[in-house]
Amino acid sequence: MPQNQVPDVVVRRLPLYLQALKHLAEQGRTLVSSTELGEWVGVTSAQIRKDLSYFGEFGTPGLGYEIETLVAALQRILQLDQDWHVVIIGAGALGHALANYRGFAEHRFLIVGVFDVSPAVIGTSIGDLAVQPMEQLAQTVRERHVEIAILAVPARAAQAVADQIVSCGVRAILNYAPMALSTPPEVHVTYIDPIARLQAMTFYLQQT
Amino acid sequence: MPQNQVPDVVVRRLPLYLQALKHLAEQGRTLVSSTELGEWVGVTSAQIRKDLSYFGEFGTPGLGYEIETLVAALQRILQLDQDWHVVIIGAGALGHALANYRGFAEHRFLIVGVFDVSPAVIGTSIGDLAVQPMEQLAQTVRERHVEIAILAVPARAAQAVADQIVSCGVRAILNYAPMALSTPPEVHVTYIDPIARLQAMTFYLQQT
Repeated sequence: MPQNQVPDVVVRRLPLYLQALKHLAEQGRTLVSSTELGEWVGVTSAQIRKDLSYFGEFGTPGLGYEIETLVAALQRILQLDQDWHVVIIGAGALGHALANYRGFAEHRFLIVGVFDVSPAVIGTSIGDLAVQPMEQLAQTVRERHVEIAILAVPARAAQAVADQIVSCGVRAILNYAPMALSTPPEVHVTYIDPIARLQAMTFYLQQT
Repeated sequence: MPQNQVPDVVVRRLPLYLQALKHLAEQGRTLVSSTELGEWVGVTSAQIRKDLSYFGEFGTPGLGYEIETLVAALQRILQLDQDWHVVIIGAGALGHALANYRGFAEHRFLIVGVFDVSPAVIGTSIGDLAVQPMEQLAQTVRERHVEIAILAVPARAAQAVADQIVSCGVRAILNYAPMALSTPPEVHVTYIDPIARLQAMTFYLQQT
């Protein structure tokens, strides 16, 4: 199935399936039904079967999914059977927290550089990394084969920084800045703005 | 329109419309077409018109939307015309970054408490707040009318902490822990796991 024929919402659920399957495997489980997997992720069993059908035939009716097989398939589909090199742009409080987060490396997202414009932070250390000036971004992207940038800069700076990132050849941006970015169609941008998520939740909090 | 008849995906787009409208207002604009608003947010003009139709009649054909009117309507729909009291659970690197993030207060999400289990951090200060022990969570939730908790704890602790949060009467959880939570149906959980978002992006990064 060509990538552009799978709905984005389906792709976004695959990591949740993978996460649940790994938890089950850690508990020593080898098989899981679509019903139980659905309960873990919060979708119906029919949805899981439909989502997976985009990528082939998985599972045995009445028996369920072999966890190890499905984990391997999802990792292959999502291209997680390899390391990805990532840079963080912005070395403020959020950039620091992200650079220190061990979860990235555990999931093969290797932070290979942290960049900032501020002379006050350039050269300071975060773990094993020294914060570099933005002028060195292009070289790092080229030499370390960086595919993904995490944007942790203020909203007012986000578009200019995104333009720089894109011109260096980075193809995916995880954007923590509360700002919609304009990028070429071949660049994939994901927004992870906590304000927008909170603002969607308050819709459901009817005042009593 | 009753809340449960609006698709969740529509609700999640409303904050993005609001954000774009506010940027346009800051530029001195008073009117915007659905086409231009769609370009800001990355959806079609038809999608915007359909999304807004759940909530009433907005805009004038050929003229567009009055920005001020639509901002006020979206704030009312999302219940953003009031303050919301929020607690942060977990005072590690991420909890610190979140507690120091000014964007929350600017958007009327007031952080009224930070909680942790570790004696090493309880009593330390983050801005104006002293980190409190989990035993004080129930009292703070009751006295400060807390509706929302931000969960910034390790995955292995997330479910137990979520159970505590729910038993205190909190009705919405923004979960940064990479872990699906089991909660009662009346509690609204939003996941903001960067790993899952990165894992969905790599799907699109075909190797060249």
